[in-house]
Amino acid sequence: MPVQLNTPLAEELLPVAGVRIGVAQAGIRKPKRKDLTVFLLDEGSVVGAVFTQNRFAAAPVQVCREHLGAGSAIRALVINTGNANAGTGAPGLASARQTCTVLARALGLRHEQVLPFSTGVILEPLPLERLLAGLPAALADAAAVPSGAHWLSAAQGIMTTDTVPKAASLRFELGGRSVCASGIAKGAGMIRPNMATMLGFVATDACVAPTLMDALARRLADASFNRISIDGDTSTNDSLVVVATGQAGNACVSDLDSADGLALLAALTPLARQLAHAIVRDGEGATKFITVQVEGGQCEAECLQVAYAVAHSPLVKTAFFASDPNLGRILAAVGYAGVADLDASRVELHLGDVHVVTQGGRHPAYREEDGQRVMKEAEIVVRIGLGRGQASQTVWTCDLSHDYVSINADYRS
Amino acid sequence: MPVQLNTPLAEELLPVAGVRIGVAQAGIRKPKRKDLTVFLLDEGSVVGAVFTQNRFAAAPVQVCREHLGAGSAIRALVINTGNANAGTGAPGLASARQTCTVLARALGLRHEQVLPFSTGVILEPLPLERLLAGLPAALADAAAVPSGAHWLSAAQGIMTTDTVPKAASLRFELGGRSVCASGIAKGAGMIRPNMATMLGFVATDACVAPTLMDALARRLADASFNRISIDGDTSTNDSLVVVATGQAGNACVSDLDSADGLALLAALTPLARQLAHAIVRDGEGATKFITVQVEGGQCEAECLQVAYAVAHSPLVKTAFFASDPNLGRILAAVGYAGVADLDASRVELHLGDVHVVTQGGRHPAYREEDGQRVMKEAEIVVRIGLGRGQASQTVWTCDLSHDYVSINADYRS
Repeated sequence: MPVQLNTPLAEELLPVAGVRIGVAQAGIRKPKRKDLTVFLLDEGSVVGAVFTQNRFAAAPVQVCREHLGAGSAIRALVINTGNANAGTGAPGLASARQTCTVLARALGLRHEQVLPFSTGVILEPLPLERLLAGLPAALADAAAVPSGAHWLSAAQGIMTTDTVPKAASLRFELGGRSVCASGIAKGAGMIRPNMATMLGFVATDACVAPTLMDALARRLADASFNRISIDGDTSTNDSLVVVATGQAGNACVSDLDSADGLALLAALTPLARQLAHAIVRDGEGATKFITVQVEGGQCEAECLQVAYAVAHSPLVKTAFFASDPNLGRILAAVGYAGVADLDASRVELHLGDVHVVTQGGRHPAYREEDGQRVMKEAEIVVRIGLGRGQASQTVWTCDLSHDYVSINADYRS
Repeated sequence: MPVQLNTPLAEELLPVAGVRIGVAQAGIRKPKRKDLTVFLLDEGSVVGAVFTQNRFAAAPVQVCREHLGAGSAIRALVINTGNANAGTGAPGLASARQTCTVLARALGLRHEQVLPFSTGVILEPLPLERLLAGLPAALADAAAVPSGAHWLSAAQGIMTTDTVPKAASLRFELGGRSVCASGIAKGAGMIRPNMATMLGFVATDACVAPTLMDALARRLADASFNRISIDGDTSTNDSLVVVATGQAGNACVSDLDSADGLALLAALTPLARQLAHAIVRDGEGATKFITVQVEGGQCEAECLQVAYAVAHSPLVKTAFFASDPNLGRILAAVGYAGVADLDASRVELHLGDVHVVTQGGRHPAYREEDGQRVMKEAEIVVRIGLGRGQASQTVWTCDLSHDYVSINADYRS
């Protein structure tokens, strides 16, 4: 049961001028489900991306890096679910390249103008023939008049253990023009992005200088997908792609720290964050949406270290599942997070509006029933003060429930 | 259900000359259970110890460090279960000190000759009065003729969520004398010792130079308790104490790297490892005992990093629970373990006797049913080759089951 997360309505999703989407049922792992998605980008579109830091980067991630490095304009994305094409060695790489070649040929492009993405089970050969056989149907779907329904369909077409498709749109002003952005994401397990989420795609019709796109993707990821964790497992396939088609007619953004650049970030960050939060809300077995705020650190890195130690602790996560204010577990995680010279006697802990720990010990006014009240809520804020500086960071996570075990024990069967 | 672990028989446990043990029911958390244990050490005994690196070290850990630093001969240990006396601030420290003072007075010792230990729930005040009221009964029990039953009783008296008491003994030759050693340990959750286990106590009647005792404790811990993990949560109370009473009459060991020193380590290491393995076998909800061997690393540190990434991955652990050879999850964990320049194409993976991955990809001869066969076993060896050096390390862990969630969701209720 996802935590306060509903399937988006097709009519709330905005088609982005310059982007066409097609989705097909290719039978990659299971029959009769949307599992193959293509994004076709008009000429003039620019693309930025960030990828997993996992050393077992999947074959499509390796091919994406090659193609983005080649400098040609990216004009198409192709995404399959059901198989991650990771841990597949040379045959996997060949399959990812062949996918690009076949799609490029159909579109009159060069193979390096196509980016491939895969998500699903690791260490199994990609069923390339079924994937290629599904491409014509995906292209036919992309030929229809672009609509919000296409974005919803793509959000469905990239799901694995997700229970709810994840998509969002917004419209905003940029340089006096009305521009829009839409995005989709997927992921529910193996989530501790260390660059980007499992898969995220965001497109805007704004004009953005091509040289800014990677930095834009990075800044969006660092404020959203790079701050979530479900199980601490950084996937082999994490990818975030940001597309700007330039069809909105705004004066091209040439500096992310200019007024326009900051306006663009201010608009797209909540969109990226909404998608990232949707991944946590739909986290495998999640029953609680938990915000871990760490303040008073000497630097952002140590705040993140503490926040992730709390967010990854199976003991903390099972206590949230049980709505049990067994809050010593949070202190233990703060203590082992690796901040070597942390002074425990300066640590403060708030759970929602309840002051639980002061100066490293139980707050005199803390009553178990107050902790209990907050623990029962579906959305909980844990605020930790380290008392050693001005830095702060926030991470979002979920609890660890029986269903997490069930889902991951049964995933492939 | 612990994995191939039985309650030790009292008659298999050896009393250690110079050590008397007493156990009482003090009602610290629950009535009618053994929850208070004292070890009384004859004059001439020497003690070494290692403690948790958690910055929220519990009050008794802080007091142990003070008392060991004071240089007086340690003559008594006092251990309660039911309450960890951690995150308890100044009142917690006062309670730990008062415990030592009261016991020292009863025994005609100085307070710094007593070491206190606590285990149980964090962040709740220690019920000092009940603890102190239980001391006379524990001392009375210690007055009886020492027997193996006392060791079994102590193993029971330190349990928390443990389902099986953990104790072991052995007899060996040292410098032409027959010497013996017995040990107990406890722990089933919040286990990723970063110095020692939750609580472990090992005593021998061998004579060992007092200056060697801390190094002995450290070397035993690094070969046993510091190589196990259940949930990656390093506790606030981890402590390992090693006692040598010197009553066996051997020529005193004055160098751990001498023939006698190495013989002592060779005898005590399997004892410590047996106790550490017992903790994993009794891991909360454990159904499998898993050995993770990492070979071919450039240094031991990176081998450990990879071994722990695999041992801590909830996805790997749930796959073991399900007996599902979803082995790509192991590759993903190897990839995100943080070995920055790891060449994935040199990685090898064996599961038991089955060669699963070669040169970073699926082994051509690997068949799912072979992986399945090994995954169904109760004891599984995962062997990972990094292909970049000669270093190796081994870590022991268990799977992640529904019962882990149940136990930790319900622990306090």
